[in-house]
Amino acid sequence: PLGLCWVLGPAAAFAVPNILLLFMDDMGWGDLGAFGEPSKETPNLDQMASEGMLFLDFYTANPLCSPSRAALLTGRLPVRNGFYTTNAHARNAYAPQDIVGGISDSELLLPELLKKAGYVNKIIGKWHLGHRPQFHPLKHGFDEWFGSPNCHFGPFDNRAQPNIPVYRDWEMIGRYYEDFKIDLKTGEANLTQIYLQEALDFISNQQASQQPFFLYWAIDATHAPVYASKQFLGTSQRGLYGDAVREIDDSVGKILKHLEKLGISENTFVFFTSDNGAALISAPQEGGSNGPFLCGKQTTFEGGMREPAIAWWPGHIPAGGVSHQLGSVMDLFSISLSLAGLQPPSDRQIDGIDLLPAILQGKLIDRPIFYYRGNEMMAVRVGPYKAHYWTWSNSWEEYKKGINFCPGQNVSGVTTHTLEEHTNLPLLFHLGRDPGEKYPLSFASDEYQRAMAQISALVQQHKVTMVPGVPQLNVCDSAVMNWSPPGCEKLGKCLKPPKSDPKKCIWPH
Amino acid sequence: PLGLCWVLGPAAAFAVPNILLLFMDDMGWGDLGAFGEPSKETPNLDQMASEGMLFLDFYTANPLCSPSRAALLTGRLPVRNGFYTTNAHARNAYAPQDIVGGISDSELLLPELLKKAGYVNKIIGKWHLGHRPQFHPLKHGFDEWFGSPNCHFGPFDNRAQPNIPVYRDWEMIGRYYEDFKIDLKTGEANLTQIYLQEALDFISNQQASQQPFFLYWAIDATHAPVYASKQFLGTSQRGLYGDAVREIDDSVGKILKHLEKLGISENTFVFFTSDNGAALISAPQEGGSNGPFLCGKQTTFEGGMREPAIAWWPGHIPAGGVSHQLGSVMDLFSISLSLAGLQPPSDRQIDGIDLLPAILQGKLIDRPIFYYRGNEMMAVRVGPYKAHYWTWSNSWEEYKKGINFCPGQNVSGVTTHTLEEHTNLPLLFHLGRDPGEKYPLSFASDEYQRAMAQISALVQQHKVTMVPGVPQLNVCDSAVMNWSPPGCEKLGKCLKPPKSDPKKCIWPH
Repeated sequence: PLGLCWVLGPAAAFAVPNILLLFMDDMGWGDLGAFGEPSKETPNLDQMASEGMLFLDFYTANPLCSPSRAALLTGRLPVRNGFYTTNAHARNAYAPQDIVGGISDSELLLPELLKKAGYVNKIIGKWHLGHRPQFHPLKHGFDEWFGSPNCHFGPFDNRAQPNIPVYRDWEMIGRYYEDFKIDLKTGEANLTQIYLQEALDFISNQQASQQPFFLYWAIDATHAPVYASKQFLGTSQRGLYGDAVREIDDSVGKILKHLEKLGISENTFVFFTSDNGAALISAPQEGGSNGPFLCGKQTTFEGGMREPAIAWWPGHIPAGGVSHQLGSVMDLFSISLSLAGLQPPSDRQIDGIDLLPAILQGKLIDRPIFYYRGNEMMAVRVGPYKAHYWTWSNSWEEYKKGINFCPGQNVSGVTTHTLEEHTNLPLLFHLGRDPGEKYPLSFASDEYQRAMAQISALVQQHKVTMVPGVPQLNVCDSAVMNWSPPGCEKLGKCLKPPKSDPKKCIWPH
Repeated sequence: PLGLCWVLGPAAAFAVPNILLLFMDDMGWGDLGAFGEPSKETPNLDQMASEGMLFLDFYTANPLCSPSRAALLTGRLPVRNGFYTTNAHARNAYAPQDIVGGISDSELLLPELLKKAGYVNKIIGKWHLGHRPQFHPLKHGFDEWFGSPNCHFGPFDNRAQPNIPVYRDWEMIGRYYEDFKIDLKTGEANLTQIYLQEALDFISNQQASQQPFFLYWAIDATHAPVYASKQFLGTSQRGLYGDAVREIDDSVGKILKHLEKLGISENTFVFFTSDNGAALISAPQEGGSNGPFLCGKQTTFEGGMREPAIAWWPGHIPAGGVSHQLGSVMDLFSISLSLAGLQPPSDRQIDGIDLLPAILQGKLIDRPIFYYRGNEMMAVRVGPYKAHYWTWSNSWEEYKKGINFCPGQNVSGVTTHTLEEHTNLPLLFHLGRDPGEKYPLSFASDEYQRAMAQISALVQQHKVTMVPGVPQLNVCDSAVMNWSPPGCEKLGKCLKPPKSDPKKCIWPH
């Protein structure tokens, strides 16, 4: 691992740095002061950026939560790791509680690999890679878990649908809305404080144990229903969503200060990013901002997939750096392995790349970004150019119901309400001149021809070598819901599942 | 004046600080890295912000160039100082070269007033307050001028329309495209370098003379046709517009360093802002970015009137400050008077307020922002609330010709193509939760009722006490164009005007 010669003090006993991924839920590129949010209410994250490195061109692998998280933990595109559907073309699928599938045993997750280098691995927050027993995070490399397998939707009636459980390690310790309250009227919930304390405690314990740690802090206060603790409610100029962001900002500040106080900040690599773009369908009360970018969550426009991103590692990452390296959440897999001195698996295609040369030495690594929606490569970015092979916001049918992924935005022929194919003549944008994807380049221009020649070759190679994984998000069954998670007996919270009735999941988007 | 006790070193001989206004043309809120421009190519302006104070809620007085500039220099709304039209309702008017009117002798301009405190005043760049002899800037308080009376449109044929002259002080020294080249094919022009050198020289001379100066640096490289010097062409990820911004950024850096080198940075108040929102009609090649805001230049949506703004005064303004003070270009009039130890004129309504308590002590001063289009108050902001009394982007007729002030944006009932009256039930937005003006508050909500009660009272008071000035932008005449500006004889550049034929100017927007 790089830069270990600089490690001094109590942390010097570690051979490898700790890894802390702060992974947000539905937070958009434009939600941080450092990224131009006009209320500028994120002093701690802005300071993290000024002490570390800001990534302006960092992407998720999919504009929806489960596939994004599966991609981060496997270093592979969802179409490879199985987090997609073939029920319909180009649909976003995720892991609701009636999903039958989940992360396959054949996938190698980051914590499984890090164990080989002596890491203790903890996930705090949302897992979202399947909630049935075989998909449990402690069966996939994590040593500890505090959080839930699915989104905090609810409250449910425990008849047609059970409330989502919250786990500590192997067993549930309660359910949302019953034991872990969220007041949907006021937006009050103290969950971020709980997640914060879990993180501080874990860090303290690991520091004491002298083992390196991998902490995946996957909190969800900015996912609808958005929530904040009482002391943050009403404190933001941005309403409830802003209250949640402020509490997260405050928590990140406390975590970084905790690292400093323990003397391990120079031995802990921290990365902050989000799973997908802001959910504009929940705006303005419960959705964030994608800044100047087009549309949001669920779409393969920039607003759906470009993420806020900050790397922080005092003494290693130059303070105040800004990088235009094209990055991906999948790179966090490769970066983490590199930090741990491990080689990535050689028996499978890894889509992530090791960005440490970009982070530590400011090098720019040439690489494409692929924008997928389910089983379809919708778009690709190469340098400043982005080519849309398919466009779709959502169907007219959904749009007429009021579901709008691009509120207030409408770019003719781009934010289409039918799934439009452009494979013969992709729509091409120059994201430097036109970050908002409003002005497709002329097909007849030299610039179009030059850029597409390069892009076409990369896309062809990508498609020829693509071996899709077994799709995990095709089958839904009410019987697999969180009726009787392990530990439910002790709590008297076991519920009786209905008869199994597997069906094709319906993914409308 | 405040803070003079802190002035030390060579500058201590001055009784009052120098004032330097860096006033951009058509630059948008979202064009600076510090404001979230995704290519982040403004290191000098970002550093200026980190050493000074960033204003996130700073506005122009009108979404078009001439009225904005007239407002800055008079501290008064265009409807008071005459920079508006009554030819049609709610139209944006400016000062093209066939305009008959200009700044009235009865208006008191900032440089006229500053003279009383011993300031030497220079304008570098675009005047735009009328080009006929009586409107000459040296007749309105400036001691020196290098620049042009109108926009750098052209090239013209010198028959139907003469090329715009460039003046040094009282006389023209050439014309655009003839003596001051702009290559419309490549975008090359060295004008920003010339304006930079003018600024550096003036500052050096004034420093030597030991007199305080007011320098109004009103450059125009980001107004279409956008231009940059050869060494900046092709250097931006943002295309030609970005090249122009980079050159401006570089120039601002050189000006600030020059102040530091001369030892007068602690005795020079510097403010950077722009005349109106980015001209989205010129995007993507020659238009900038309004970040997450709605629409652009010519509109009274946030994209048309919220401006990037930075105050810089080392040793006086706390470094790295961020202010949510509602500010206006008209406040620069009042701030400057305050810095000079002068009282604002008491015989007329001044709309600007002295923001020094906000800038120096971080105090927030309660005040409304009025959004005018020509002779109509279109909207008002009070705290986080903005009420639209009228909405209009542009007419269907213009829109169908391809003139679009909101490309890619369309908010139903808000970005209207007919001039819509809402005076009985204004459209109300909460700009904290909804900076993009996409979600009008429900008329029936308590929040609406509460906010409108306060706003209505302010608006009523504003309207009752409003005394409009004589409109200066009603009459156009080809005979008044820049045919034979003073000094043309020496250059052999006098042209013969056509017969006078005054007409009502046509203002389509």
